[in-house]
Amino acid sequence: MVSANPLTGYNSLMKTEQSNYQRFQQYARELADLKATLQLLSWDQETMMPSRGSVTRAQQISTLAALYHEKLTSDVLGTLIEDLQNRPLEPWGSSSVRELKRQRDKAVRVPQSLVRELAETISLSYEAWVQARKASDFLAFRPWLEKVVYLKREEARCIHDSQSLYEALLDDYEPQMMTKQLDQLFERLRPYLTSLLNRVETSPTKIKAELLRGNYPRWKQEEFGRQVLTAMGFDWEAGRLDVSPHPFSSGFTPFDVRITTRYCEEDFSSSFFGMVHEGGHALYEQGLDPHYHGLPACEAISMGIHESQSRLWENQIARSSLFWEHWLPALKKTFPELSALSLDDFVAALNRVEASLIRVDADEVTYGLHVILRYQLEKQLIEGDLSVGDLEEAWKRKMQEFLGIVPLRSAEGVLQDTHWSQGLIGYFPTYVLGNLYAAQVFFHARQEIAEFENQVRKGELRPLREWLREKIHIHGKTVTADQLIKNISGRQLDPRFLIDYLEEKFTAIYRL
Amino acid sequence: MVSANPLTGYNSLMKTEQSNYQRFQQYARELADLKATLQLLSWDQETMMPSRGSVTRAQQISTLAALYHEKLTSDVLGTLIEDLQNRPLEPWGSSSVRELKRQRDKAVRVPQSLVRELAETISLSYEAWVQARKASDFLAFRPWLEKVVYLKREEARCIHDSQSLYEALLDDYEPQMMTKQLDQLFERLRPYLTSLLNRVETSPTKIKAELLRGNYPRWKQEEFGRQVLTAMGFDWEAGRLDVSPHPFSSGFTPFDVRITTRYCEEDFSSSFFGMVHEGGHALYEQGLDPHYHGLPACEAISMGIHESQSRLWENQIARSSLFWEHWLPALKKTFPELSALSLDDFVAALNRVEASLIRVDADEVTYGLHVILRYQLEKQLIEGDLSVGDLEEAWKRKMQEFLGIVPLRSAEGVLQDTHWSQGLIGYFPTYVLGNLYAAQVFFHARQEIAEFENQVRKGELRPLREWLREKIHIHGKTVTADQLIKNISGRQLDPRFLIDYLEEKFTAIYRL
Repeated sequence: MVSANPLTGYNSLMKTEQSNYQRFQQYARELADLKATLQLLSWDQETMMPSRGSVTRAQQISTLAALYHEKLTSDVLGTLIEDLQNRPLEPWGSSSVRELKRQRDKAVRVPQSLVRELAETISLSYEAWVQARKASDFLAFRPWLEKVVYLKREEARCIHDSQSLYEALLDDYEPQMMTKQLDQLFERLRPYLTSLLNRVETSPTKIKAELLRGNYPRWKQEEFGRQVLTAMGFDWEAGRLDVSPHPFSSGFTPFDVRITTRYCEEDFSSSFFGMVHEGGHALYEQGLDPHYHGLPACEAISMGIHESQSRLWENQIARSSLFWEHWLPALKKTFPELSALSLDDFVAALNRVEASLIRVDADEVTYGLHVILRYQLEKQLIEGDLSVGDLEEAWKRKMQEFLGIVPLRSAEGVLQDTHWSQGLIGYFPTYVLGNLYAAQVFFHARQEIAEFENQVRKGELRPLREWLREKIHIHGKTVTADQLIKNISGRQLDPRFLIDYLEEKFTAIYRL
Repeated sequence: MVSANPLTGYNSLMKTEQSNYQRFQQYARELADLKATLQLLSWDQETMMPSRGSVTRAQQISTLAALYHEKLTSDVLGTLIEDLQNRPLEPWGSSSVRELKRQRDKAVRVPQSLVRELAETISLSYEAWVQARKASDFLAFRPWLEKVVYLKREEARCIHDSQSLYEALLDDYEPQMMTKQLDQLFERLRPYLTSLLNRVETSPTKIKAELLRGNYPRWKQEEFGRQVLTAMGFDWEAGRLDVSPHPFSSGFTPFDVRITTRYCEEDFSSSFFGMVHEGGHALYEQGLDPHYHGLPACEAISMGIHESQSRLWENQIARSSLFWEHWLPALKKTFPELSALSLDDFVAALNRVEASLIRVDADEVTYGLHVILRYQLEKQLIEGDLSVGDLEEAWKRKMQEFLGIVPLRSAEGVLQDTHWSQGLIGYFPTYVLGNLYAAQVFFHARQEIAEFENQVRKGELRPLREWLREKIHIHGKTVTADQLIKNISGRQLDPRFLIDYLEEKFTAIYRL
């Protein structure tokens, strides 16, 4: 049988006697359906699609994205939003109207011609970046990056009101965050990270990460990872785990959340922390209030808050000694070659700190330095304070200043990340925000969850998921990031929490 | 990293200085993108989606189907078609304009209210059918089937011109086929099938199908199936093989064609013939001219021609003695428990003929009788010559007449197939048309391909794929089914070819 053609078209918009709020909900749900479909097209491309499907897949994504844009900018939606924005609605309703208005206002301001040019440029510049990185040839990528920066500045110019150009872009990932606040946060964090790195480097304690090298069959890595994900509360009836070249998570709806990892047979930790990290993202998506699915407020608050969920599970939990008290025996059962390792040596090896060139391989101390460097450079690029021609030199100077090492090859420097080639400018700072939020949230989770340490020590991770769900996941966008952290912590985002966490952890590991 | 949001919307329709034909191509390509996306949503639902995703998936499909319908019935497309239909265009262009006009004319004629009611009814009646079949309770399903038949008659009334009501529905699956021709074809075929069945039943030769029972690990079945698919010329870089409850094939584009099977560990033949059957469908989709992908003419001609491709590979090839001369030794290597079987006994067991109640388990001789029965009944239902209340009695009478057996339970009779519950009325006859086309095409393939028998005997199946590609696949809808069979065979579709094929094959197997 050839698959039944599902084209039983009908137009669910043409209902009669609906209130404008019902119409708005219906309209928003259709936008959510389109967005989930776009996510499926991308997920499938990374995990399942046969290689020759790539060109037509790009066309499908482009057609669906155009339809989404058309629906988002339509007058029908504009009129509904105008009517509803000053009416009293339930909290999910008013947050949803506000959120869709925010998205629509931006979409309307950017002319079609610019949107199209950006999309085409990005698709070509990504290809150029892949080649340039392979050849470690920044000059080959430079004209593309110049064009991307030029077009993103144009985009920012169309969108921004009272914000700066960079803030207009940042708003896509971390709504309402200002560069002034970012600068303040990072200028407290950065000197601490550099000094902690120096103290570690001069400490007599040397950690042998080689202890973890071995031969770990892929299926055993997967089996162990699935056990831990299950213990974290990942709902397998509402999710999947697959393999892709770059790990990611994708929440189509709270009922269908998919994560990926990649396996390295010499090192189980790469796939393991990938699974836990993406699992943390996935618990957020699975934890959104299913009752409000399809409303624009029923999404994660921001990329920073999203990242806090993955980082908290990855770092505060899965890189802790408490966690491995329960799981190391299970891991040793899976991989008997680890049997001789003590808990302390094992956890130390997982947490070795070292200045290195590549962000994605960085430890908890140096990671923030890599990201702050990128944030400062991309902000200068967008604000017009740095030209792409001077970027590589600036990169090297900052690497020397922050980490004390300098890349010799562009592939290990300015060409290492894909973000800029894809026009993702304003995304980087959310990685550090994620670490900051995670530390602040974790501090309170540890205080409020009864017997927290004993539970983690016994492998019981569900209470933490429940706490995060109740405090964060279930609320979607009905609160802002700022309100959320005040609700949990009674105060604004404060780098103190991350600094204290790192200080406690690495003082112990490195006997500082 | 949370998956990059691919919503870089841009409207590719707003190009300037295009000819109307270029606009038409662009528009058609976007429809093709939407259709491929709908197919992906369904494929994923059957193969990958976690169970809790089903409700939101149904919403996504409904939203996308509504958008497709909106685009198909738009005035923009109507104006383009009107302008282009009498202009001289390249053959692919004129076929494409004609095909999209055909689809659009139908879509425009059916009122939104009816389309919506049909879609909703079908979704509910499918659920009712699942329950009713489980309980073998036709009375419980009867009101649903009455409503489906009523609504499909209404649909047919909206669509039909000079055709009969049934022909108006048949046109969805086998364009331009008339019931008069079907009746003539089937009235030649049916008596022959019944008499062949009688001769087999009274033959002293008894075939032991139990010889094939065994214990076949799933991964070995898959490995062997993949070998055969590779030999058939299935392009793994443009396709996949997965598992689903009901085997199907889905061609998103010629570059991405996916098939599924299901495994039964006691019987390798169920998954094997599933793979070869769906593989035959897939070679058609992979063989469409990639240069014209996205044009409405770049699709399979009809369900009957599609089915001919799957049947030819499944029956004429994979159930033949020639085929197993090469593959049985390989199969025995995979499953040593088969080593004692002779080629003749093995092939006979694969081809045992027996009157049975269930269509999908039927052999090559009785299969057609099952289908002709359904065709005759559904035609009467739509033409108003039979009421749903009298359906079960009519079913039993015809079973007695055609096959000499009568179901005692509705689940093994009128409730066995899903088609009617899903509004698929007019689909059944394409199964027999597929067998007829397959036999006629195969007759000529065997004559025209150099050394055909020796090649199959040596396991070389590619020349057959090349021949089918050149004669059928590559042309898409630029020819009609009728023209195609005349091009290949020099004459109209003729049951003689199937009758001769069956006569030769089963006379030998049953020593008639």
